[in-house]
Order: sequence, then structure tokens, then C-alpha cells
Amino acid sequence: MVESVCASGSDSGVPVSILEAIRAVEPPDASWCDRVSARHDRLTMPQGSLGRLLDLGRLLGGVQRTDQPTGQPALVAVFAADHGVSREGVSAYPTGVTAQMVANYLGGGAAVNVLARRAGAEVRVVDMGVAEPVIGATSCHMFESHPVRRGTASFLDGPAMTRAQALQAFATGLELGERWVDREGYRIVALGEMGIGNTTTASALATVLTDKPVDALVGRGTGIDDDRLELKRRVVASAVARHRGGCRDLWDVLARLGGFEIIGLAGLAIAAARGRAVVVLDGFISSVSGLIAARLCPMARGSMIAAHVGTEPGHRVVLDALGLAPLLDLGLRLGEGTGAVLALPLLAAAADLLRDMATFDSAGVSGPVGAPQP
Amino acid sequence: MVESVCASGSDSGVPVSILEAIRAVEPPDASWCDRVSARHDRLTMPQGSLGRLLDLGRLLGGVQRTDQPTGQPALVAVFAADHGVSREGVSAYPTGVTAQMVANYLGGGAAVNVLARRAGAEVRVVDMGVAEPVIGATSCHMFESHPVRRGTASFLDGPAMTRAQALQAFATGLELGERWVDREGYRIVALGEMGIGNTTTASALATVLTDKPVDALVGRGTGIDDDRLELKRRVVASAVARHRGGCRDLWDVLARLGGFEIIGLAGLAIAAARGRAVVVLDGFISSVSGLIAARLCPMARGSMIAAHVGTEPGHRVVLDALGLAPLLDLGLRLGEGTGAVLALPLLAAAADLLRDMATFDSAGVSGPVGAPQP
Repeated sequence: MVESVCASGSDSGVPVSILEAIRAVEPPDASWCDRVSARHDRLTMPQGSLGRLLDLGRLLGGVQRTDQPTGQPALVAVFAADHGVSREGVSAYPTGVTAQMVANYLGGGAAVNVLARRAGAEVRVVDMGVAEPVIGATSCHMFESHPVRRGTASFLDGPAMTRAQALQAFATGLELGERWVDREGYRIVALGEMGIGNTTTASALATVLTDKPVDALVGRGTGIDDDRLELKRRVVASAVARHRGGCRDLWDVLARLGGFEIIGLAGLAIAAARGRAVVVLDGFISSVSGLIAARLCPMARGSMIAAHVGTEPGHRVVLDALGLAPLLDLGLRLGEGTGAVLALPLLAAAADLLRDMATFDSAGVSGPVGAPQP
Repeated sequence: MVESVCASGSDSGVPVSILEAIRAVEPPDASWCDRVSARHDRLTMPQGSLGRLLDLGRLLGGVQRTDQPTGQPALVAVFAADHGVSREGVSAYPTGVTAQMVANYLGGGAAVNVLARRAGAEVRVVDMGVAEPVIGATSCHMFESHPVRRGTASFLDGPAMTRAQALQAFATGLELGERWVDREGYRIVALGEMGIGNTTTASALATVLTDKPVDALVGRGTGIDDDRLELKRRVVASAVARHRGGCRDLWDVLARLGGFEIIGLAGLAIAAARGRAVVVLDGFISSVSGLIAARLCPMARGSMIAAHVGTEPGHRVVLDALGLAPLLDLGLRLGEGTGAVLALPLLAAAADLLRDMATFDSAGVSGPVGAPQP
């Protein structure tokens, strides 16, 4: 089952533009990773002593094809949409909060805005299918509106969307990514999301994509109590049971169980990887987008960084499925790109070290005893 | 034994200025921590959803006595000194590297310089007892020279220093901290160090301070091989066996087994805590300085943050003894303040959230279903 939804299988109805984008993704260039390692070894520190910062440097160098990569400019894309399943009472918050929080992003007062200012990252907010009107949206430079529909249908009643709508959501993310990376020149793309009910959607998708038990993939989201958690588990189990058998390929999984913002972010990840930008995953939901992208295009995984592991239990399961080790573990569960933005200074630092540190030779510092002198 | 060295015991010969500084330290103000929590709960995010960033905000608020604290200005102090025990072959690098690396800091080319520039932190380098002359030191604004002596004696031959020298090293750190915090206004003080052989010194100190087995506290430092590691374990075990019984109080432990930079940083930590600045510990060695400070003055612990846990095995043992949970776990083992500086953006972010985020009320965002509306 999982195999069949992982393989691209039939590509029936998938637009050529999507298939071409997927085929054009290349993995990080191993020879540049090696050159970064060689450069690291000449810098004034004991070999390997900056641990995962050095891994980050190799990834940046491999993706950007240079031994002096950059961690900037960076963009955090917050894709927002509503979810029919939120009607089932799976979230602590009412649906209207999605549009209210989008307005909050546009006003600059949400956590992601504050953290992005500190990290020097640009925020872009995209309405992928928010149910209610967003106040203040018309006049804001950081906002664009590409709704597939004003929220998905509940996957308890039928497919969340049509296959064509899933493809449209993906294509939207792909096109935005091409613009941001290929034309505007962002080198780092952090994935953020907002959508009341979207941990439920992400759990349903992740259950099918990872083939793990529902209970391992359902958590408290925004902070629901035990009763709602039990309801949420039943909702996800019921949705998976209803739709799993009817999926010919990954696009069917996305159509039946997906959300517009989650699918859109997968498209964005593919566009970023193809454009040799680094993709920074945030929480559980954006990591599911990363997993979708990696299943469509295994090459894309090499451009991804897991910024953190949060408290949502499915997050670690999804990162394990991606084979990614998180950089931070700070007990986060907010989403909206916040954890991804918190990791950006580490990427910038990894790049700075390669550009700005002295070498043993240039600084006149002796190497280890017994090692050949430069 | 551990109790007797933990208690201040006799204060024989300890200058009044040191005793007064220790007595003047106050813990973070719990009422301000509570006010920070109350402010957090009004911000536009699910309660508690930014995890440890919220803990950081509470600590900053409690230390600074405000619900809108700041993460700036921040300073990273790199204290450097040499260690007589390095003659025993416990390090991968020759002693001269201490002075060479100090020159590298002054030239701005070391890892800590690069990372501090990114984090917006000021670097200050202090010669606490470097064995060889530092090239370029005279003309550098970030440098000052307060050597107790040009390196300690080997604690295999006798005490590393006299009790008066231990007190002098501590008083130097205390005075520098008073200047930097009370007069220059730094709100965050990160502890960094450089000294070939100083993991050996730190291991000996930590063995006595924590009463744990030598093997749990000795690691590979800059990256020694198995043979040197075995030698290092024997050296530390021998030093601890020789000196432990002769210590009347903590000052004797510091004199017999200490290093000038390690003791100086403990003084700096006390001055910072007294001045209501946050103290950010870096790796194993500076964490031993933090443990010394906390043993002299348990109140000081409340102002400390463990930036990270590195690969040196004793680091976690020392953080456990301090009761501090590290923020980052990135496989670092460089020291010189690098890990502490990498955590500074998290502190700044924690402060930014409290100052700049919108509240549910101000942003017109609905709270959880069933919760009282503001």
C-alpha cells in the first residue's frame, strides 16, 4: 500500500509542468560537500569541533555549489487554508481564527513576524483556501491570494478535494517557489502554515504516508484536552479507513485527505530544491509537506533541513521517515514557520564560518602535535 | 567531602569584597516571572506553544525585573590562560596555541568572532595567565591583560597555584564583570575560555565538585586519541587523589586543581548575577566555572542559562549538577564561547516576543472555544 502511494505510479492527469519540475531536481553536489569539508579542516579550530554547524555548511555548499555558501536571503512562507474536518470539533480554536491569524501576520504582530525580523527573514503569506475573508489583505505587500477553494470538504464525508484541486494547490506552491527562488533570489525557504484543524489533516496524511499507527501520529495540536484527543484519533482513523483503499497514487492520497496549504508547501519545497535553495521544515505539518515532496521526488530530500522537533508526537515519526535529524528541540508546537525561523541563525552561522574564519595558515596557529604543518 | 568543599566554610583569607559580592546576589524575582507568564498568555498563540522560549522569557523577566525584558546588549568574555598540566601530553595541541588563538581572537578570525558578529554580541578577550606573549595585543580595544601568572603549575607536582592566586583570579573576573555589567550596561554575559590543557583542569575540578567518577568527567577535549585519553584519565585521577584530602574549602580546591581562566569566569558569573545580567554558559569548561559560582553562591544559579550540551562527557554531568537543561545539542566541542553565542538569538527572540507580539485582544483573534473572551 505505502509503496504504491510512494511511487509516482500512473501520472494520469498530472500536468507536464509538475512532472518536469520534479524531474529537474538535483541532489546536493557531493564534490562541493567535500570541498566544504576540506575548507573546514583548514579553519582555526580542532577538526570537527563545531559539530552540526559543519554538517549545515556541507549541506549549504552542496546545494549552492560553492565552498563559501550563504544563509541569506531567507524567506518564510506561511501558507494558510481551512479544513472541513475542523467542523468535527478536533481543534481547540474556531475556524475563523485562520483568517484572523492571517490578518495578524499581515499586521506584523504574530510570533513568526517577530522571530523573522530578528532572523532577518522575509515573511510571505499566501491564502491557499481560507474560509473567511481576511481583513487588511488587499493592501499588504507580503500577502497574496491563491485560494483553491474556501476550505476543504470534511474527509469524513468524502474526499477533502478533487484530484484537480490537489494538483492546483501543488502547482500554486511550485509557481510561487519559482518566482521567489529563481526570480527573487531567495537562497533559504522556510515552510510555515496556518489552518485551524490542520494537525488533523496532517495526521491523516502521515498515517497513510508512513504506514504507522494512527495513535503515533495524532497529538494535541493547539492544546486539546483528553476528550478531544480521543475524538481526533477516531476521526483520523475513520478517515484513513475510508480513503486508504481508494488511492491509486500519491495524488489521490492528497486529494482525499489533504489540505490546500499542506499540498502547496510540498510544491514550494520542490521548486526551492530545483532552484538550489535550502528548504527548512518547521513543525509536524510542514514536515508532512516535506515528506510529500520527498515521496514525489526523493532527490528533493537532500535540500531539506529539519529545523526542530516539536511536541506533536507525529513530528518525530515524520522526520524519521524523511531521515532528517532536527536541529532544535525546544518544546515548540506553534507552527506558522516559527521553529524554522529560529533555526535560520544556525544556517547563517554555518555559512559565515566558511566565509569569515581564519585558517591555521593565515592566522599563524599551530596544528595538532605530530600533525603535518601546513 | 563534597559538602565540606561546597559550603563556604571558613572564609579565612577571602577578601571582604568577594564575600560581599557573593552575599549581594539575588535570585530572579518570581513575581516578575509570573507577570511574564501572564503576558505570554495574552499573546496570539496557543498557551505554552513556544515551549522553552517562554521559559527563557520568564528567566529574562525575573532577572531583569520587567515583563518586557531585553536580550541585548550581549557580551562574550573569552578568558585565556595556560595550564602546567599540559606538559603531561594531555592535549592534542602544543601550549603555544593558547597565545596564538588569543591573537586570532584579536584579529577577528576565530569562530567566536564570526559567530558573535552574527549574533550582535561584543567579544572581550582577557589574558588571565597565558604562557607566551600575545602578538598584536597592545593595540586591541577588545583585549585586556590581567595575568595572575604565566600559566599554572602542574597539579601533579603540587598545587596549581596558591590560594592567594585563586582569590586574585576570582577577584579579577568579579571586577571585570562589575565594569561590564554595572558600568557598561551589558544585560547578557556569555562565558568563553581558551587554554590548552583546560579540559584536564576542568575534569579534575568537576570530579571533586560533583563527586562523580573520574571516567565520567574526562573526555577527548580537542580530539585526543585513545592512548592520550587513557593518559588523561590517569593524570586526573592522580591529581584528584593527591589533592582532594587537603582541601578545607572550595578555595583550596580551586587553588590546588584550578586554572586562572576557569576561576576568573566564576567571578565574572557572580558579578553578572549580582548586576542582574543573565549568565550564558558555553561548554564543559565554562560550565565548571558556572558550577564553582553556584557552589560559592547558590543564588547565582537562577541567572544562568546552559546554552548547549557538547560532546565532552563531563558537560552533561556538570549541567546536571547545576540542574540546568541545555538549549542546544549540536555536537559542539570547541569552547571559546561559541556555543553560548549560538544560543544568544534564542534569548533575543524570547525577549522580542514579549515586546513585539500582538495580544489576542489587540489583534482581534478569538481565543479557544469555550474559553472566556477577553
